[in-house]
Amino acid sequence: MELFEAMRTQRALRRLKPDPVPEELIWQILEAATGAPSGGNLQPWNFVVIRDPGIKRKLHEFYLDGMAHVTRPSGSALADTNDARMGRSARYLAEHLAEAPVLILATVRLADVASTTPPGACIYPEVQNLMLAARSLGLGSVLTTLHRHREKDVVALLGIPTGIETMALIPLGWPLDRHGPTRRKPAAEIAFWDRWGRTQSNSSRTPG
Amino acid sequence: MELFEAMRTQRALRRLKPDPVPEELIWQILEAATGAPSGGNLQPWNFVVIRDPGIKRKLHEFYLDGMAHVTRPSGSALADTNDARMGRSARYLAEHLAEAPVLILATVRLADVASTTPPGACIYPEVQNLMLAARSLGLGSVLTTLHRHREKDVVALLGIPTGIETMALIPLGWPLDRHGPTRRKPAAEIAFWDRWGRTQSNSSRTPG
Repeated sequence: MELFEAMRTQRALRRLKPDPVPEELIWQILEAATGAPSGGNLQPWNFVVIRDPGIKRKLHEFYLDGMAHVTRPSGSALADTNDARMGRSARYLAEHLAEAPVLILATVRLADVASTTPPGACIYPEVQNLMLAARSLGLGSVLTTLHRHREKDVVALLGIPTGIETMALIPLGWPLDRHGPTRRKPAAEIAFWDRWGRTQSNSSRTPG
Repeated sequence: MELFEAMRTQRALRRLKPDPVPEELIWQILEAATGAPSGGNLQPWNFVVIRDPGIKRKLHEFYLDGMAHVTRPSGSALADTNDARMGRSARYLAEHLAEAPVLILATVRLADVASTTPPGACIYPEVQNLMLAARSLGLGSVLTTLHRHREKDVVALLGIPTGIETMALIPLGWPLDRHGPTRRKPAAEIAFWDRWGRTQSNSSRTPG
């Protein structure tokens, strides 16, 4: 699949069939993930591929606990309540997380992240590659973080050592919905030129 | 360009020509960036496209100050000193940052990020799309964060309001070096199955 086409049509697909995902596709997705960069190429990442039903059920429990407690400072709902599709899809995931054939937990080794670098800089580029690869293979995925409300329990459940932080839990599977165009603000609204707030339309300055 | 090809060959290219980048390519890259996901589709991102020589010189100064002070907890050098190419390219960037034709500063509006979500989850997927798009257009880029050592000064320089955090500074331009295969640990080493440390080679368990 062409790169820009994949990026334009990578939707969060939360409604997944329970059908298994062939292991060769999982490897292909993991290889794609590790193509993304990290500071000093230290590659402080790991991916735990979870298919065990008992472990998935526990993670589902932690996810729901997160959903019950997590808020945004702005007061916005976790899912956009003006977006019926997103609301339905988020509710579906809340009910069916453990039925996703694969959950991928992405982690970072904090000791290899520089002091000014948010640890996410060394894992979310990888997660994005992972989700783009999934999209191009026809698989659905979504980046979730609600399990982090129960980080200590997640760490205990999976035997994760000290110094490793879990950064994302990504359900992966064959989607019930379709990939397709995403709904985003136009770049012209969110891009500023040389100074905060200076869009090209509100600036009389000719870009140099 | 094909998606997997772009992901396999996206190198950090830090040695950039000073030649200008056509504005239509910058827009194409910004549109690609905004294709990536954010929690609740709240899109808490902005991108400040910096071409003003005076502003670039100040950011260069902050970058060098970061380089002089930033460390990793593990004690690893900021750039892999066993990798001659990376060392040379990192030194070049330290000397020439202000000469890059474009610096893109990626920011996050913290109020729209959920309490369990590292803010990077809503910006580094975008940064990765941006860098993949650049790669496919033949442009070089690299994700840097050293300017964050002087976050307050960066914020004052660009007039960034309270509640917005700068997450990455990405030099963008025509590269002196080539894109090409990256050097990464094999996925089989960093992927675990159902439990931390359980690679497929050290596990007798047949994956289900």
